[in-house]
Amino acid sequence: MRTIFYISDGTALTAEAFGRAMLSMFPLKIEHKTLAFIDSEAKAEQAVSKINAAHQATGERPIIFHTFVSLELKRIITGSSGSCYDFLDYLVEPLSRELGIDAQPKTNRTHGIQENGGIRDSYDSRIEAVNYSLANDDGSNIADYDQADIILLGVSRTGKTPTSLYLALHYGIKAANYPITEDDDMENLQLPKALKLHRHKIFGLTLEPQRLHEIRSKRREGSRYASMQQCRFELQEVEKMYRREAIPFLDSTRFSVEEIAAKILAETNLERHHY
Amino acid sequence: MRTIFYISDGTALTAEAFGRAMLSMFPLKIEHKTLAFIDSEAKAEQAVSKINAAHQATGERPIIFHTFVSLELKRIITGSSGSCYDFLDYLVEPLSRELGIDAQPKTNRTHGIQENGGIRDSYDSRIEAVNYSLANDDGSNIADYDQADIILLGVSRTGKTPTSLYLALHYGIKAANYPITEDDDMENLQLPKALKLHRHKIFGLTLEPQRLHEIRSKRREGSRYASMQQCRFELQEVEKMYRREAIPFLDSTRFSVEEIAAKILAETNLERHHY
Repeated sequence: MRTIFYISDGTALTAEAFGRAMLSMFPLKIEHKTLAFIDSEAKAEQAVSKINAAHQATGERPIIFHTFVSLELKRIITGSSGSCYDFLDYLVEPLSRELGIDAQPKTNRTHGIQENGGIRDSYDSRIEAVNYSLANDDGSNIADYDQADIILLGVSRTGKTPTSLYLALHYGIKAANYPITEDDDMENLQLPKALKLHRHKIFGLTLEPQRLHEIRSKRREGSRYASMQQCRFELQEVEKMYRREAIPFLDSTRFSVEEIAAKILAETNLERHHY
Repeated sequence: MRTIFYISDGTALTAEAFGRAMLSMFPLKIEHKTLAFIDSEAKAEQAVSKINAAHQATGERPIIFHTFVSLELKRIITGSSGSCYDFLDYLVEPLSRELGIDAQPKTNRTHGIQENGGIRDSYDSRIEAVNYSLANDDGSNIADYDQADIILLGVSRTGKTPTSLYLALHYGIKAANYPITEDDDMENLQLPKALKLHRHKIFGLTLEPQRLHEIRSKRREGSRYASMQQCRFELQEVEKMYRREAIPFLDSTRFSVEEIAAKILAETNLERHHY
């Protein structure tokens, strides 16, 4: 078991993203530890003690993914007994040459709020999008669909809500979602009236019947709602409707919410409000 | 204006995180473009056309941050006229030597679902946490507080809901939130009864009065609720209560939701269910 440390004088989100990508290349049993906001020498020295203690306890050198703005704090961390990796080390100089600009490191520029750089606006647009997506969850508030960037459609438990919230939080996209329920005439499924005016904004979600059956069974085990037969029927009818109405859709069975969101962006050319 | 491309045969989320971190070092006007799921030679060649077209249009070499599993697709992209950066190039080999394991690249290992590696469980725990946080938003469902990993407390519009959802989506943490409202006796503010049993799970949020006034004014301009006086009074009383009850709290005025979430994790040692 290797101990992996993600360390930064900011959120450590970049160190985590970078470390996760690196580690994804190796089959390895690992224990993750994040040390965020290591912004003083005292804290950096505590971090070094933790690294060295993990080394002693496991007998294996911990792997350290770090991103520091402060060179002094970085020097303290790289003085630990861990094996240290910082991608900025390798790439800042070539990028600086290409751009013809010197690097100007500044704490929290990646994940923070810059009041003057317009990022406060971008940040506020994400919070606004989250509020919008919550207010427009599960078919409520259809009067506000004019403002939607996208409307996710699907039968119950196909991932509409987490996907809407992810699109809002991560990209600042106003994502409403609308459920197809048993109140709709499933034998003769039509696009709900409320959506007809907004057809160009609709994106469908679907799942494999087996997976939907598992998810619904956790909620209401043994119910008609969760039965394989009902799941298969609903998915078949809704997919028929997507095809008939030329609504783009995605089978999300094998995808994480990040992947579903990224696939929707790639397919719809939806404009994101935050990078 | 430089055009920046983030390109990958997966979600491109890693390329984006890596590129954003690199670019945060340079003061630069940029246009971002993400090309995700570039998973065939035809798509890679289209991507190259886009890069070359951006070069021609702007007269400046586009900057390309890419992460590919397929060496053949990567070769096509690096054949474009853009300036290409891949941190894996530099770091996979040293990490491989340190671990004593060969790299085994596999698409979508970073942000995808691995059925066998237990990541499906970790993924499901995030969706469960999102459902929990939604069901426990704004003081609803206090009967379920036994299951909460954390309960965020604060007056209206201090960021409780976006923070709860971020903790749930990103880390799989079950985050409830509870509002202090005018129904509470503000002159003599006590910890709400429903929370007394769960005191060890409570984390307070606060803001500077000016910022709260701005946020509330967008909602109900000119109201008593949005007035500077009311905002100042509510924040002062709630902070007094946090101190008296020894509830850890954070002034989130200058922080993004990522930073607030990371700071809460750093301060509480809350265990995350997803890395």
